[in-house]
Amino acid sequence: MSYYNENFLLKNEYARILYHNYAKEMPIFDYHCHLPEKQILENERFYDIVDIWLAGDHYKWRLMRNFGIDERYITGDATKKEKFLAYCKTLGSAFGNPLYHWSQVELEEFFGCNLEISEENAEEIYRICNAYLQEHVVTPASLIEQSNVAYIFTTNEIFDDLTTFEKIKAKGYPFEVLPAFRADKIMNVEAALYTEYIAKLEALTHAITDMDTLEDAIRIRLADFIAVGCRASDIAVEYVTPVSAREDAEAVLKKALRKEAISLQESDVFKGYFTYFLMKLYGVNHIRTELHFGAMRNNNSKMFRVLGLDSGYDCVSEHGSLTNISRLFDRLNEENALPATILFNLNGKQNLEIMPLLGCFQSSEVRGKMQYGPAWWFLDNKVGMEKHLEDLTATGHLATFVGMLTDSRSLLSYPRHHYFRRILCNYLGTMMTEGEMTTDVEKVGQVVRDISFLNSESYFRMK
Amino acid sequence: MSYYNENFLLKNEYARILYHNYAKEMPIFDYHCHLPEKQILENERFYDIVDIWLAGDHYKWRLMRNFGIDERYITGDATKKEKFLAYCKTLGSAFGNPLYHWSQVELEEFFGCNLEISEENAEEIYRICNAYLQEHVVTPASLIEQSNVAYIFTTNEIFDDLTTFEKIKAKGYPFEVLPAFRADKIMNVEAALYTEYIAKLEALTHAITDMDTLEDAIRIRLADFIAVGCRASDIAVEYVTPVSAREDAEAVLKKALRKEAISLQESDVFKGYFTYFLMKLYGVNHIRTELHFGAMRNNNSKMFRVLGLDSGYDCVSEHGSLTNISRLFDRLNEENALPATILFNLNGKQNLEIMPLLGCFQSSEVRGKMQYGPAWWFLDNKVGMEKHLEDLTATGHLATFVGMLTDSRSLLSYPRHHYFRRILCNYLGTMMTEGEMTTDVEKVGQVVRDISFLNSESYFRMK
Amino acid sequence: MSYYNENFLLKNEYARILYHNYAKEMPIFDYHCHLPEKQILENERFYDIVDIWLAGDHYKWRLMRNFGIDERYITGDATKKEKFLAYCKTLGSAFGNPLYHWSQVELEEFFGCNLEISEENAEEIYRICNAYLQEHVVTPASLIEQSNVAYIFTTNEIFDDLTTFEKIKAKGYPFEVLPAFRADKIMNVEAALYTEYIAKLEALTHAITDMDTLEDAIRIRLADFIAVGCRASDIAVEYVTPVSAREDAEAVLKKALRKEAISLQESDVFKGYFTYFLMKLYGVNHIRTELHFGAMRNNNSKMFRVLGLDSGYDCVSEHGSLTNISRLFDRLNEENALPATILFNLNGKQNLEIMPLLGCFQSSEVRGKMQYGPAWWFLDNKVGMEKHLEDLTATGHLATFVGMLTDSRSLLSYPRHHYFRRILCNYLGTMMTEGEMTTDVEKVGQVVRDISFLNSESYFRMK
Repeated sequence: MSYYNENFLLKNEYARILYHNYAKEMPIFDYHCHLPEKQILENERFYDIVDIWLAGDHYKWRLMRNFGIDERYITGDATKKEKFLAYCKTLGSAFGNPLYHWSQVELEEFFGCNLEISEENAEEIYRICNAYLQEHVVTPASLIEQSNVAYIFTTNEIFDDLTTFEKIKAKGYPFEVLPAFRADKIMNVEAALYTEYIAKLEALTHAITDMDTLEDAIRIRLADFIAVGCRASDIAVEYVTPVSAREDAEAVLKKALRKEAISLQESDVFKGYFTYFLMKLYGVNHIRTELHFGAMRNNNSKMFRVLGLDSGYDCVSEHGSLTNISRLFDRLNEENALPATILFNLNGKQNLEIMPLLGCFQSSEVRGKMQYGPAWWFLDNKVGMEKHLEDLTATGHLATFVGMLTDSRSLLSYPRHHYFRRILCNYLGTMMTEGEMTTDVEKVGQVVRDISFLNSESYFRMK
Repeated sequence: MSYYNENFLLKNEYARILYHNYAKEMPIFDYHCHLPEKQILENERFYDIVDIWLAGDHYKWRLMRNFGIDERYITGDATKKEKFLAYCKTLGSAFGNPLYHWSQVELEEFFGCNLEISEENAEEIYRICNAYLQEHVVTPASLIEQSNVAYIFTTNEIFDDLTTFEKIKAKGYPFEVLPAFRADKIMNVEAALYTEYIAKLEALTHAITDMDTLEDAIRIRLADFIAVGCRASDIAVEYVTPVSAREDAEAVLKKALRKEAISLQESDVFKGYFTYFLMKLYGVNHIRTELHFGAMRNNNSKMFRVLGLDSGYDCVSEHGSLTNISRLFDRLNEENALPATILFNLNGKQNLEIMPLLGCFQSSEVRGKMQYGPAWWFLDNKVGMEKHLEDLTATGHLATFVGMLTDSRSLLSYPRHHYFRRILCNYLGTMMTEGEMTTDVEKVGQVVRDISFLNSESYFRMK
Repeated sequence: MSYYNENFLLKNEYARILYHNYAKEMPIFDYHCHLPEKQILENERFYDIVDIWLAGDHYKWRLMRNFGIDERYITGDATKKEKFLAYCKTLGSAFGNPLYHWSQVELEEFFGCNLEISEENAEEIYRICNAYLQEHVVTPASLIEQSNVAYIFTTNEIFDDLTTFEKIKAKGYPFEVLPAFRADKIMNVEAALYTEYIAKLEALTHAITDMDTLEDAIRIRLADFIAVGCRASDIAVEYVTPVSAREDAEAVLKKALRKEAISLQESDVFKGYFTYFLMKLYGVNHIRTELHFGAMRNNNSKMFRVLGLDSGYDCVSEHGSLTNISRLFDRLNEENALPATILFNLNGKQNLEIMPLLGCFQSSEVRGKMQYGPAWWFLDNKVGMEKHLEDLTATGHLATFVGMLTDSRSLLSYPRHHYFRRILCNYLGTMMTEGEMTTDVEKVGQVVRDISFLNSESYFRMK
């Protein structure tokens, strides 16, 4: 049997009480993920764990590469079973890595398998899990329902087909699936495929020839998203550039529409204005903004040509842009259009810069209006979450925190919410045990409930 | 009763011995604060806790904003009692925040009130504290004396009235109040009110028309400060700029004196020379320099128009300037005029850059000449102090450390010294308990006494 | 007796089992140090501990300066005994500093002296250690052999005399001493002595007049190094500059050969191309690259004139160069010439940037091809190592780690490997104890053996 048990990560009695009596039963609000909504709609049954566990998960691919596994067993033509064995071998000594924990918990929660993951046990685990999939009808919707998920925000491109969400609604699942609005493909003016994305947007709106027609098209699509229940938007940039003049941004736009090459400087100018435009639009429409910054993408050109985007070749940017973010927020605030915003950093060195900045732009109109987003991607691990909680509480107010998300492409990721809740309960339980805070369990338990679910439900205006 | 007791933060027997037998009884040397010396002189009695606890304390205001409290209850026209209740409600779930601890300790130390701060207890706490203020004569001097404070350095503008310090001296208080010399208002050449500040300085010296007359005026005022006992100076900048040529700085100065607008680049040029000039002056006069860098101020323009400076809208700068600081120190050292300096960083990512740089400029003329200043402002919390101690000891020598200050505008802040001493004793006691250092209590206790008080008394040449 | 004992830093039973049963007996692979190979060859006996313990060790000098010791007792004309006493006095209260631990362990391991280092015990310790040196024949080779060292890579300039290594081999020591190839003196085109270094290289190869002849000379010398067993190379820069065009670099080279002054911008251009050239050469020749970045050197001009390089006046650079490193690796990877590389950062704020970048360039050709190098120099302390292990495991795979080195100029530094192994075993043992990983001791023990020795033996192709 593995090291995992019901008190995993809960290192004192208060932590255990908080988790088992307050956190565990709360529903999940996954307000940022990359699940394909069509997969939820089609709801096809799974017969092989590899299809749910390893397919498309670049976190796992990266760990295998770090262990020296050949690409054949990662994204190549090895059999499913060979890939499964290679991953289990990799995990067998990946002590301390988040996947070491996540994967073990996933086997337990979804397959009732508590065998310790290792090269030796790999065959047996594969047999048990696939036997489970023969005996039980496991589908996307069953996994979501089993995980007690109440709301899912998928991340959707501006030109995505929204009828899928209406069809999902019609299915009567005991959970809601709503799109988060993302205009990054229209923001990234330097991309080779930019005019193709514009063409897709035009097909849903009208001809785009200048900034007026572009902005109108975006307004139209945001209204379409809102019509199917959208409450949130997402922006992902390596760094935030200074707010630029609309006419300068328009000059870059026109150049891009003519398919001319766009320099880094030009795309920075375009994004500077465009980020401001989007956030103002979101602010006016009461759409929450999730602003992710700090990823430097596609570092390995050779593998990019083979595998494309999101295949495990991204890393953390060294560039900060706190001054630019402050000026952007201030400008929007001056125009009474600063949206409620969750700011996610990817570089841990910026942790202690986030809350002090956000604290300058709070407002009682929304409780916890400016949010320090949970530990994300390369920070989404035990140490990263503990550090996030420490830094959030030292410089902000814990009780308004909207809590965790999965940011995942995998249907098996929901236990990451439980993982986070265990860490949260242990963090609070430890302070209680050590005489650093109240031991009023009911009061602390209410904060645990809030952070686990209720704060996000309120923040995104679901109730 | 609250979680606070006499062994708060002291988690092992050695920690408790060190604190109770060595740290607790040492006097306080508050070598950097923002208390108004006139308040100490006038010494008026307090009748409402809100006047001492919440008035003017932007740390508390910020926490309330982060919790979503309306500005009316923070700086607006709500009654004192309403503000008190709003603050207690905010604290009730602010687990982990330094104010959660500080405020509880302040109630205990100054009002003998050990009720746990919360929305439910707020009315009762208000009643108890204000009853205390009716029954006891509580004044600035009584609070300072009760706190066993030996020395206070207030932070004074170059044109402040120094007779206040003579009058305080004449009162025969059992503590000394001395001014620290701060020329920032003359440094910040870009400020709208710059010529008004210059005019104030001229009124105390002579006409200022160029760099010669400016430097002379500063020399005169520093001599005036020294005449009333000044031992320390303070410089606060977002970042240190390269040392510039005197003639370039003078060109900017003349432009400012003509009330022309000063660009960011120009003010950087002026500050580059002026920082060098000031530190050289301090070095020659054996005045210690407290150099605070890393605050990005007044981020929220809307609130700046309402509340002005120092109202909780500052944050941490992302910009470093280590290379510039190294060159500045080297230049001063070449000219045998590098002052003994305490360097304070506000951005935690720079922690591990500080001691290695300072270690390049030590000198036996002053023990611990170049000091890594204690955790400041957004770093002034349990995690920040523990990190400071760890980083200081890993790369420097703990025993020469001059220890804590309050940096506060509030007369109730002295328990922060005790808070720091508890963390220091726990840090050392834990290493003793875990077999990582000597268990010679008397030897370790002496270091605790040194850091609590004796090092700063020696560093600032009080004895 | 001192706080040091056999279970030092091993805080639970698993940690003790891992250390005593798996780590302790493994040989040492010191793949980066600054021992003078001639000292090993000449193998002269030591009679005074000061000659082995304090001479040339700028770590110790720096700590003494931070404590306020006069330079006379550090590098000046005080007697050996006076210097010894001054160092012991400094250590007596240097709680938490790595030298506080290292020095105590060194006395125990090499002199069997367990007296706690302090001012009071200094005389007695000096007597005991020097008595030991009279009674025992202690030489460089005896210290290395006693420390169970299997391989030493000294760091050698491109023009160093390689016959020393052949002579050492002929001596039949039970350990191998091999040179690591370092071309920094040829890289640092801005140095005052640059043409002298070029002349030394010319004397071993041919006239150097342009980039062709320079590159040929380097190829020749690398072949010479390989002929005596070289497996590794070293590059040390403050920051990595963008890969520049060969002709631009050549223009700078020619200017330097004409003894014209080289600007910072020009030297950056030269280094940008030259780093790329060197790493490509290493990649093609299967020579591992140890890339150290982040030191800002010689900050104190006054002391540089007195003591020269490497005397304790270096510090940590604030500058990152992650983007440049990514582009450099990508270019080499595109040309199938990216060498297996160990990347060392000196600034802790960059910790969490390293593994995510390296993970983009792994390859199954070498297990753990791209390595996050152990905590180095100002990070080489308990907190720094623990942080390194945490950050490595959170974002990479622990089991492929090549482990520790000394980076030292001192023959008494080998216990630092034991210090690291204790921290490693305690890190793993704590996770085992707390239910966060497998408790299969034999499996974890094998990873401990790998990291202690076997991974580096394999990585550097010794077997």
